[in-house]
Amino acid sequence: MTNMPSAGRGDPQDVPESVRAALAAQEIELPSWGFGNAGTRFKVFATPGTPRDPFEKVADAALVHQLTGSAPRVSLHIPWDQVPDFEELAAHATDHGVTLGVINSNVFQDDDYRLGSLASPDAAARAKAVQHHLDCLQVCRATGSKALKIWLSDGLNYPGQDNLWARQERIADGLAEIYAALKPDEQLLLEYKFFEPAFYAMDIPDWGTSLLHCLALGEQAKVVLDTGHHAPGTNVEFIVMQLLRAGRLGAFDFNSRFYADDDLMAGAADPFQLFRIMDQIVAANALAPEAGVNFMLDECHNIESKIEGQIRSVMNVQEATAKALLVDRAALAEAQLTGDVLGANGILMDAFNTDVRPLLAEIRAAKGACADPVEAFRQSGYAERMASERIGGVQASWGA
Amino acid sequence: MTNMPSAGRGDPQDVPESVRAALAAQEIELPSWGFGNAGTRFKVFATPGTPRDPFEKVADAALVHQLTGSAPRVSLHIPWDQVPDFEELAAHATDHGVTLGVINSNVFQDDDYRLGSLASPDAAARAKAVQHHLDCLQVCRATGSKALKIWLSDGLNYPGQDNLWARQERIADGLAEIYAALKPDEQLLLEYKFFEPAFYAMDIPDWGTSLLHCLALGEQAKVVLDTGHHAPGTNVEFIVMQLLRAGRLGAFDFNSRFYADDDLMAGAADPFQLFRIMDQIVAANALAPEAGVNFMLDECHNIESKIEGQIRSVMNVQEATAKALLVDRAALAEAQLTGDVLGANGILMDAFNTDVRPLLAEIRAAKGACADPVEAFRQSGYAERMASERIGGVQASWGA
Amino acid sequence: MTNMPSAGRGDPQDVPESVRAALAAQEIELPSWGFGNAGTRFKVFATPGTPRDPFEKVADAALVHQLTGSAPRVSLHIPWDQVPDFEELAAHATDHGVTLGVINSNVFQDDDYRLGSLASPDAAARAKAVQHHLDCLQVCRATGSKALKIWLSDGLNYPGQDNLWARQERIADGLAEIYAALKPDEQLLLEYKFFEPAFYAMDIPDWGTSLLHCLALGEQAKVVLDTGHHAPGTNVEFIVMQLLRAGRLGAFDFNSRFYADDDLMAGAADPFQLFRIMDQIVAANALAPEAGVNFMLDECHNIESKIEGQIRSVMNVQEATAKALLVDRAALAEAQLTGDVLGANGILMDAFNTDVRPLLAEIRAAKGACADPVEAFRQSGYAERMASERIGGVQASWGA
Amino acid sequence: MTNMPSAGRGDPQDVPESVRAALAAQEIELPSWGFGNAGTRFKVFATPGTPRDPFEKVADAALVHQLTGSAPRVSLHIPWDQVPDFEELAAHATDHGVTLGVINSNVFQDDDYRLGSLASPDAAARAKAVQHHLDCLQVCRATGSKALKIWLSDGLNYPGQDNLWARQERIADGLAEIYAALKPDEQLLLEYKFFEPAFYAMDIPDWGTSLLHCLALGEQAKVVLDTGHHAPGTNVEFIVMQLLRAGRLGAFDFNSRFYADDDLMAGAADPFQLFRIMDQIVAANALAPEAGVNFMLDECHNIESKIEGQIRSVMNVQEATAKALLVDRAALAEAQLTGDVLGANGILMDAFNTDVRPLLAEIRAAKGACADPVEAFRQSGYAERMASERIGGVQASWGA
Repeated sequence: MTNMPSAGRGDPQDVPESVRAALAAQEIELPSWGFGNAGTRFKVFATPGTPRDPFEKVADAALVHQLTGSAPRVSLHIPWDQVPDFEELAAHATDHGVTLGVINSNVFQDDDYRLGSLASPDAAARAKAVQHHLDCLQVCRATGSKALKIWLSDGLNYPGQDNLWARQERIADGLAEIYAALKPDEQLLLEYKFFEPAFYAMDIPDWGTSLLHCLALGEQAKVVLDTGHHAPGTNVEFIVMQLLRAGRLGAFDFNSRFYADDDLMAGAADPFQLFRIMDQIVAANALAPEAGVNFMLDECHNIESKIEGQIRSVMNVQEATAKALLVDRAALAEAQLTGDVLGANGILMDAFNTDVRPLLAEIRAAKGACADPVEAFRQSGYAERMASERIGGVQASWGA
Repeated sequence: MTNMPSAGRGDPQDVPESVRAALAAQEIELPSWGFGNAGTRFKVFATPGTPRDPFEKVADAALVHQLTGSAPRVSLHIPWDQVPDFEELAAHATDHGVTLGVINSNVFQDDDYRLGSLASPDAAARAKAVQHHLDCLQVCRATGSKALKIWLSDGLNYPGQDNLWARQERIADGLAEIYAALKPDEQLLLEYKFFEPAFYAMDIPDWGTSLLHCLALGEQAKVVLDTGHHAPGTNVEFIVMQLLRAGRLGAFDFNSRFYADDDLMAGAADPFQLFRIMDQIVAANALAPEAGVNFMLDECHNIESKIEGQIRSVMNVQEATAKALLVDRAALAEAQLTGDVLGANGILMDAFNTDVRPLLAEIRAAKGACADPVEAFRQSGYAERMASERIGGVQASWGA
Repeated sequence: MTNMPSAGRGDPQDVPESVRAALAAQEIELPSWGFGNAGTRFKVFATPGTPRDPFEKVADAALVHQLTGSAPRVSLHIPWDQVPDFEELAAHATDHGVTLGVINSNVFQDDDYRLGSLASPDAAARAKAVQHHLDCLQVCRATGSKALKIWLSDGLNYPGQDNLWARQERIADGLAEIYAALKPDEQLLLEYKFFEPAFYAMDIPDWGTSLLHCLALGEQAKVVLDTGHHAPGTNVEFIVMQLLRAGRLGAFDFNSRFYADDDLMAGAADPFQLFRIMDQIVAANALAPEAGVNFMLDECHNIESKIEGQIRSVMNVQEATAKALLVDRAALAEAQLTGDVLGANGILMDAFNTDVRPLLAEIRAAKGACADPVEAFRQSGYAERMASERIGGVQASWGA
Repeated sequence: MTNMPSAGRGDPQDVPESVRAALAAQEIELPSWGFGNAGTRFKVFATPGTPRDPFEKVADAALVHQLTGSAPRVSLHIPWDQVPDFEELAAHATDHGVTLGVINSNVFQDDDYRLGSLASPDAAARAKAVQHHLDCLQVCRATGSKALKIWLSDGLNYPGQDNLWARQERIADGLAEIYAALKPDEQLLLEYKFFEPAFYAMDIPDWGTSLLHCLALGEQAKVVLDTGHHAPGTNVEFIVMQLLRAGRLGAFDFNSRFYADDDLMAGAADPFQLFRIMDQIVAANALAPEAGVNFMLDECHNIESKIEGQIRSVMNVQEATAKALLVDRAALAEAQLTGDVLGANGILMDAFNTDVRPLLAEIRAAKGACADPVEAFRQSGYAERMASERIGGVQASWGA
């Protein structure tokens, strides 16, 4: 029975080896920009010790991996992470025990993009945006990355401002140019977003639009699901399932939202939703790295410790995953097929209500990482050391 | 210049003949159930004179067409409009100057559908649902209708209640069976809905899911866009554009919402949104009947006069259409291409701010309908006559 | 440290006696209508064994109390629970080990209320609504209830339909008449709701409006917070705090929502939100019955077992409460005052992530209730027995 | 009858003199910051000719007044508009035909406010915030302003981050200190906001919270309603009515939103909503300046011309007001009282559908302003002149 007053399925000694193995193998990719300053239009708070360059960001990310054992890659954002020699940066990463991951483009910070990038009515802006993505592909090759991630901030603030349909065609044309430059083992990952920075219409506002573009491009194009990029009330795990079913879920950008694209720590706003998302992943057997879904974080740590924020986010994803792996799938399927509504729900909740922290502590320790990464970080003195060492220069943020 | 203090482009004498012709040719399809009682889970208010059977509903709908000149068809809902002889009902419609339109199925009112219809884990429920749709196709043939409209109320109330992916497969299988029974000149129209009556997950919650099923089925499958079936803040005209671009916008269910699927009169909650939707239609040259988009109403008149509610809804769609037709598209395109954000927006608003009521009154009168349909209805005594004649029997509602 | 790999603060043997005592003393009030059939405007599914009258509803509720040990009262809804002799019903309740609780009025099911009840422009409708509440006060006295709960379905579907301000004045007048009839030890509990059944404007749509009316009435008027009655994204625990601070939180109507007023089981949609709500209650020392807040359920079990749905809801509220009681408040206050954002959040999450089910099982068993109430219910055969005994008659629902 | 095919009540020659007088007397206050650069966290686009200092902002605002005849005051924002000599700035305004209006404080841009301002757990931050407001009162006295407007960005990003209740008490204390410094003819205007920049809980998130603080402070404290600061679906005109009824509507911050606090031009996203808001104002006889409600704009012109954006916003508010003044209130009241739902709605829509642009053009011209302010601005060459004159220096934005 599902609600027994025993400690239940989460007891480390009761957990099947396959679950342990899956958890031990889980990989979460960290965003370099998560270690820089971020904020809102009202204020970006700076914090002592914030990295000044991509090398320092990678060092911070590597620490997160060292502590959690599950964050072996760092995504870069161009031009924020532009360096003279990307192979040097890649070697620096390797030295620190991590590798460089997905390359993120940026077509929202130049004045030329006032009316959009690939969707702009201005041919020069479109050409510039295409070229930027071709340049990013060169970064992929220099860093060893196999995926180019594209989020277009394109959109309209006012009805009538531009022709919605024409903008789709322009985007399709631009994406086709970029896609044509991919090597066979490279991927184009296309993100969508409900609103912001455009307030009337985003040009790629939903998974349907992103998927249509990917289908038109070809098999190497996949959709990125940012958990904060949906309308209020949207059932995100349904979209996860739908994209998996279409064979086009390329990656997650994990973060939390209460209202908009709040970019809080993953699992902070609604841990039950994160669990339901991971439940769809586990149910579809899409957790293992070879399944081809990249589990990435994408967050802004406005007022909290950045490194600790990343650690907690990794742990939150791990906990949601562990709970999803503990779902009794045979019992669940039977309850579902027999129409036992509350029985089926109860089996899911039984896993969610389990305290998996001891299990994960044990698995982390067994991998040589830390049983309690937050406490280990706090006691390491790293934050204080960086605050005293990283003096001078310009702290990394969205602008640099 | 767009904001001149003249009466502007809406003056009947200034309106191009092509605009007049497009408005005169516009066709809006009425829902039979809009003339029956409807309400919320809290209460269904009955009103004197409400039709007791499909023949009386058709008579009321025909009156709306007579007064407005633009509502020549009536959608049926099976089993609410089940009659022994559909050819008799079709002849009755013809006698009243209208024809029967789209056939709507109903798989939400039988106890067998507690866990869903096409998506149910229960094979018998699925088979029953498929058969119901095959029966509806027979109604199409008996009435001369060329389209079967499917809205599945299928969904889950609780996480874990059923397998989201398996339900998609079951739906795909059921739809394929139904689609296989279509004749070459028949259409399957597939609706989507954000929530209600299921509260955790609808099985076809968004345009992306509906479109994926239609693409899998074939060219005769198209998407129905109900204007009230979206998440808060969704840009509906964007979806209109996207479905037109995909060649899969089959029909509208027009109504208004402030919060959920409120089913208020079209144009009542946000007349500017209705205008923006019709603007996409006009911009894509999809207004004319031969363009293949069916402009239907789908409303519940909970506390207001049903016939008057339908009249106003038709007029609201006409007014939005007239404004969309008055947009100066050449000037708009130029402003858009030159990045004149406020100029482009101003051209659109110029059309929206125009008072098109005199123009439409003239067009209606020229067609032999009424310049002021609401006033004509109020003065006709029809409501009072029906209230005194339609005594006894059971008033039509969602249940019968 | 908060994230240690030990089983943590939830271990039954580590839990302070004060926490155990608070949990053992917790009282949750059940709604009689939760045991009857309910549904949406699309369908009300009936289930075998559903009560036919208030006596059978009370019997079912008493079973929930017997199993959980924490649901000693049943709210009534008038006229759904109208009986010839309320003292007989009260005695029946006592015989079953429970008492009758809050009396709920109903001013939404009569044709007279088409334009509203206390807010109606029709004086006769207003007078009828006032009288209904005076009648409900008589039910209070016959049943021993000390509180009259008022939810007004009043509102508008269309802009302009009525004068918003005038409606507030009419409501104020009507409430004043009802309030004047209260005895000194009786309470008027005033609920608010964002939307439904009115779709343009509810007359008491938010806590601010409800509170203004209560402040105008006097100290015996308090606000009811239904957890499903807010706009998307609303921070409900903030309102809990604000009403506690104003001394006017009279009662909860607990249920869950994903989209609207879904009336799902409490804690089913967002268990973290329910925990945050109970955290505010515990922080304000408002949990104990003598603090004056009535913790009531208000749910619709559309497709699931009603009794089991109530049991799970009670357990979900208990679990959220247990977690809230386990928050290390001294450590939390210190982290908050020192601006340790993640430390403070971590202390809260530490309690939320604790598996409190073993603790609650123990406490229930110690009270003579069941360690596992769901399993006990399933094995009791009660559902099957009722299905065979409760044959004939009309099953209770919102209409009767 | 309301829907006659005549040009209707908006014909300039048919409009009552009282309506003309009310429109001619209408005053809208402009935000100085609306003339500086603004944007999102992703990008702030600069435009040629943007003011470099408060004097240039005032000059631009004065041009808007000159063209529209209805914008005689400019709100300042401190420290963005800090100048050595405010009396000089006031004289500069007078020279340009306008006066200085409300003084807006800013407690969101200093590092000290990371945990909040008046609500901060840090006593030094609270003291600094109080002092800033006392300083702003000195600016009021130097500029002749009679109102201090307070928007607190205070809030939490993570559950548990701080004590929600304690923060209310700290805010109450801080506001009391500020209020105590008011002279008898000065006002404290307290704004509320649903979310942003805090993402879990704003400390003053809704009108109820703002009103409770104002009631505690005294008669000189009133609520500011920013039309973009509500949850999705919120009926804003209801709140307008409620605050008027409570005698505490101090001012509007007009702007438009599709999703969040988009700060688009007033009337751009939902002109019908703006009309409904002004309808409540007119119905309550609160339009005239002596009624005490300050009609202010608060917008960000991210990609569009700032001056033209302000002009259009003023015109949009005027148009909504003109339509509200044209509502046939006697007929409306009768339809409302007799329960003629569609008749009443029709009377409101009749006014909304009227093209009031010719009327307003005439009224503006009669005041010596421009019939077509947008066209006049475009032909004036002002934008081009400023672009060539305002070279060097730092363009004004939120940071300076």
